Amino acid sequence: MNIVLLGSGNVATNLALALKAAGENIVQVFSPNLENAKAIAKNVGSKSINSFSEIDRTADLYIVSVKDDAIAGVAKNLKGVDGLIVHTSGTTDINILSSEVKHAGVFYPLQTFSKSRIVDFKTIPLCLEASDHHQLDILTRVAEKLSDKVYVVNGDKRKVLHLAAVFACNFANHLYALSHQILTKNDLNFDLIKPLITETADKVLFDYPENVQTGPAIRRDESTINKHLAMLSDLPELQEIYQTLSNSIKLVHK
Amino acid sequence: MNIVLLGSGNVATNLALALKAAGENIVQVFSPNLENAKAIAKNVGSKSINSFSEIDRTADLYIVSVKDDAIAGVAKNLKGVDGLIVHTSGTTDINILSSEVKHAGVFYPLQTFSKSRIVDFKTIPLCLEASDHHQLDILTRVAEKLSDKVYVVNGDKRKVLHLAAVFACNFANHLYALSHQILTKNDLNFDLIKPLITETADKVLFDYPENVQTGPAIRRDESTINKHLAMLSDLPELQEIYQTLSNSIKLVHK
Repeated sequence: MNIVLLGSGNVATNLALALKAAGENIVQVFSPNLENAKAIAKNVGSKSINSFSEIDRTADLYIVSVKDDAIAGVAKNLKGVDGLIVHTSGTTDINILSSEVKHAGVFYPLQTFSKSRIVDFKTIPLCLEASDHHQLDILTRVAEKLSDKVYVVNGDKRKVLHLAAVFACNFANHLYALSHQILTKNDLNFDLIKPLITETADKVLFDYPENVQTGPAIRRDESTINKHLAMLSDLPELQEIYQTLSNSIKLVHK
Repeated sequence: MNIVLLGSGNVATNLALALKAAGENIVQVFSPNLENAKAIAKNVGSKSINSFSEIDRTADLYIVSVKDDAIAGVAKNLKGVDGLIVHTSGTTDINILSSEVKHAGVFYPLQTFSKSRIVDFKTIPLCLEASDHHQLDILTRVAEKLSDKVYVVNGDKRKVLHLAAVFACNFANHLYALSHQILTKNDLNFDLIKPLITETADKVLFDYPENVQTGPAIRRDESTINKHLAMLSDLPELQEIYQTLSNSIKLVHK
């Protein structure tokens, strides 16, 4: 299948490598920043472009993997194209494309991506949506080459998945960052806490997180909670997070 | 070495099995609730007791693994004992013991424990403290049988580790629970999000968490943030957490 990839961020970078490894033909990588497009294109034997006028309008699949507020602008430049055009956003409606182009779809990989870390797509849930059954078949065939976990998910459910992902991933990762900040400030090595981070995540593969909750808040250990709040007296933002999350733990575990 | 274990919670349960596997002799397991003591004792070939008067006062090591506010009460009942008495708390001072008993120490395993999931102690950082060098030697020898990561850590540093652990583990796990709540409320399976939880935790083994932060807040994607807040309109506690953590991400990634 001939694919045009539009975007050069974390998702586009990982997706390009996975598509290439699955034997797909990425004919072009588009980015307003040509250097970014080149960085991906050179790894997948593709052409890099930075002008909409250069886009190959005969490809089978166009993957728009850009910031949410840039999707509509890209779609306008793909008007009249016969191929299937999909975005990779968890939170943007399919209509942003289908109001502009003939065949629209969504290809949302439920994972966190960084350019510096190439992930294995095989276990990533791929959430698909398309404007008609034929296009959904096309998209499903590509998705199944990449992952063993391909799901058809409507827009409302996809948005819920994305919201849940923000809690389980973006916010959890930020808590790791705050933990790192606390340790560094006290000349303690972040490596010390890594086995704890790993075990905490591994636990939820075997039991629901609310069943394995530990710590001062669930024990109603107010003495420890107050000691911790005092230790954070010069970091009021962390104090607020500590208070908010401790209260939430108490509320869930009444 | 003859050991008396006082406590029957998550830490005591995991510690008993690790000590037994390391060839140590747990002579008694004490708990005010005899059934809880029995549940541990039967797995490590030990006697279970529920009265302080029954405690063997000739053991080499007494491990007090109870709630923080119960440590002092246990220590009072160990007055006059010659063996080393340690607690396993991340947040309680060694003085709570050393003011009561001859030889005091701290044996703090930096990990999250549940009775339902037995962890491998080999990779758990064990943070030790003792009232004198001789006792520290004794404690170190036991600890090194259990784990490859044994550290001498003073009380102030230990308390910082515990605070950092609350962020990286207790709060992160609670975010998994809130994610589970959001999914369940919308008839979506928690399994869908497990690869994301695993990858988020694995990432910090290779790069600092602030370097791999993703999501709407770091992208300043206010449109998505507002959509998410609207989706949480019937869950004001989750709205507050979303707002607080998003603001903190923006503050850290200025």
